Amino acid sequence: MTKANQQIILASRPKGMPTDENFRMIEQPVPQANEGEVLIRTLYLSVDPYMRGRMNDRKSYIPPFQINEVVTGGVVGEVIESNDPDFKEGDIVLGTLGWQKYSVAKGKHVRKINTDIAPITTSLGVLGMPGLTAYFGLLDIGQPKAGETVVVSGAAGAVGMVVGQIAKIKGCRVVGIAGSGEKNKYLVDDLGFDAAINYKTTSNLKTALAEACPNGVDIYFDNVGGSISDAVMSLLNNKARIPLCGQIALYNLEKVDTGPRIQSQLLVTSSLMKGYIVSDYSDRFGEGISQLAEWVSEGRLKYKENIVEGLENTVNAFLGLFTGENLGKQLVKVADPSLSK
Amino acid sequence: MTKANQQIILASRPKGMPTDENFRMIEQPVPQANEGEVLIRTLYLSVDPYMRGRMNDRKSYIPPFQINEVVTGGVVGEVIESNDPDFKEGDIVLGTLGWQKYSVAKGKHVRKINTDIAPITTSLGVLGMPGLTAYFGLLDIGQPKAGETVVVSGAAGAVGMVVGQIAKIKGCRVVGIAGSGEKNKYLVDDLGFDAAINYKTTSNLKTALAEACPNGVDIYFDNVGGSISDAVMSLLNNKARIPLCGQIALYNLEKVDTGPRIQSQLLVTSSLMKGYIVSDYSDRFGEGISQLAEWVSEGRLKYKENIVEGLENTVNAFLGLFTGENLGKQLVKVADPSLSK
Repeated sequence: MTKANQQIILASRPKGMPTDENFRMIEQPVPQANEGEVLIRTLYLSVDPYMRGRMNDRKSYIPPFQINEVVTGGVVGEVIESNDPDFKEGDIVLGTLGWQKYSVAKGKHVRKINTDIAPITTSLGVLGMPGLTAYFGLLDIGQPKAGETVVVSGAAGAVGMVVGQIAKIKGCRVVGIAGSGEKNKYLVDDLGFDAAINYKTTSNLKTALAEACPNGVDIYFDNVGGSISDAVMSLLNNKARIPLCGQIALYNLEKVDTGPRIQSQLLVTSSLMKGYIVSDYSDRFGEGISQLAEWVSEGRLKYKENIVEGLENTVNAFLGLFTGENLGKQLVKVADPSLSK
Repeated sequence: MTKANQQIILASRPKGMPTDENFRMIEQPVPQANEGEVLIRTLYLSVDPYMRGRMNDRKSYIPPFQINEVVTGGVVGEVIESNDPDFKEGDIVLGTLGWQKYSVAKGKHVRKINTDIAPITTSLGVLGMPGLTAYFGLLDIGQPKAGETVVVSGAAGAVGMVVGQIAKIKGCRVVGIAGSGEKNKYLVDDLGFDAAINYKTTSNLKTALAEACPNGVDIYFDNVGGSISDAVMSLLNNKARIPLCGQIALYNLEKVDTGPRIQSQLLVTSSLMKGYIVSDYSDRFGEGISQLAEWVSEGRLKYKENIVEGLENTVNAFLGLFTGENLGKQLVKVADPSLSK
C-alpha cells in the first residue's frame, strides 16, 4: 500500500496578518512507525489563535515553528499501525501532531480518547485545550463568586463561550463581547449570557459596557486585548481579576502596540491581572476534563463547532480566526474513521 | 490660653505638577475637644506621593481632598487635652490628621505609639504606612523566594528602601532604580542592594537592567510606572510577579498616559500584576509592624528620614517628592514634644 502524505508547511514567516503565501502544501511518503511508535491517520485537526505566535521567530512560551516544517497543533486521529503495546489499530487518539494526513508519534506522546463520553471532536474543543483554558483561567485566576459580573471578550470563540457558561453555572452576571449580531444572538439565546455587545457596530463600547454592567466589572476574561480591553478598564470594581488568556487583536501587529497605560487603574482598584497558558495547570487536567464532561452530560455546558472539510482548507480556516468568522471551535475534518471501527 | 492654629488648605486643584499656588496657609482658632475627643499638637507630619491623587476630583480608593479644607495625612502628635479616658496629656499618637499645628480627633481614630521601640518618627516611615506598604506588597503579592531577582523602582523612597532590604532578608538578588548617584551609593553601600541604576544618567535603561539582572526578573516592585517600568517588562521571567504600589511618574499627568501594551508580555510569561493599597491588609497590620520592628531592632532593616523643619515648609517638601529630592522618608517637623514629657 503506497500512500502519499499531504502536509502543510510554513513556507515563510508572516509579517502582520498571515496569508496563503506563508504556507505550502507538499507531498511526502507516509512515515514509518518504529518501535514504541504509532502511525496515526488524521481525522480532525484544530486551528487555534495561539498558533499565530509560533509563526514568529520570537521567544514565547513555546518555541517557534520552523520554516519548511509541518505546522503542528492539536489533532484527533486513528491509530492505523501500532508498535506500542498500549495501542491497537482503530484506537482514537489526541496529540500535538501536524497539519498533515498521517503522523508518527511515540505512544507516550498521545492520549487515547474515550469515545463513549462525547463526540471525538470535543477533545479538541470543550473537553480539550480550549475548554481547559476556560476552566482554569476563569476559576483559578478569576475566582468568580455568585452575583459578580463577568465580561468576556472573544465571547463566541472556543474559549470564550465556555468561560461564559461556567460563569453562569457559578451564578454570575455574564456579558459577552463578540463581532456579529448572529454570534451575540447565539450567546444570549442559546448559551444564557445576560447580554452581548457587538464591538463592530456599537457606537461607544465603553457606554454599552457600562449599561450592560450596572454593578461594574468583577472579572474581565481577556481573549483579545487592544482597544476592546481598554474599554473595560474604567469599569473595574475594587479587587477585580483579569485572566489574560489571549491577545488576538495584537497577534498580527508588526511592532509592540501602544495604548493607555493600565497600571493606574489596576492600582486604584487593587485589581489583579495575570497571564497564563493552559499547561500551567497540566497537573490538574484530569480534574478539569472530568468537571467539564459532567457539565456537558448534564446539558449545562453547550458547545458549538465550526467544521470545514478537507486538509486543503486548513489555511483558510486558520486565517478566518483573525477576521472573526468562526462561531465556536474551528476544526478541519480531514478524514472519517475507517469502516472497521 | 489663646493659640492660633496655622493650617495649610488646598486652595485649588493642581493641573499637572502642583505648585505653591495650589495651597494657602491660614489661621484659625485652635479647635475644642468635645466628649470622646482629644486635642493633638502636631509634632511631625508626613508628605506622601499618594496625596497627589487626592488633590484631583476623581474617584479613587479614597475620596478627594476638598477645596478650602485642610490637607490631611499621617501625623504624629502629642495629646495636650483629652476628653477620652483612654488618653492622657503627653501621650504620643499617630493619626490621619492634617497639615496644621493642632488637630482634634476622636480617641478611637488615633493610635498611641509605644515610644520605647524606636524614635516616634518611624511610625510615619519604616514602622508606619510606608513600611507596611513595602512589607505586604513584597511578601503577599511578590512572594519572594531565595535566589530570585527583585527589581525595585523608586528604590530610594520610603517604600522602596524597605522593599529592597526585606528582599535581601529573604535571600534575593536586589536591583534598585533611583534618580541620583548619591541615592544609589546609599542603596548599595549602606542598605546592601546588589546593584542600583540611575535612570537619569544611564544611556539605555533596558540594557543596564539586563546587565544587572543576568537571570531575568522574578519580581518587579513598581513605585513609579511610565517608561521606567516599560524597560523592565522584557526581562520578566516565567511566573513573575509585579506588585503595583505607585505610579509616581503618572500622578501629575493631565490625561491618561499611553505606552507599550504590557498584556502580551504578561501573557507569554504567565506573570501576575496586582495593584493594592496598604489598607487592603489592615487586619494584618499588627503582624507587619511587629516583624518590621524586630528587623529594625536586629539592625537588619535600616531607615533613612529626610526631615525639614516648620509647617511653612510642608508644601515644598511635598513638591520635592515629584522631583526626586528625597532620600528616604520625607517628614516635616512642626514642633518638639513639650518639656513635661
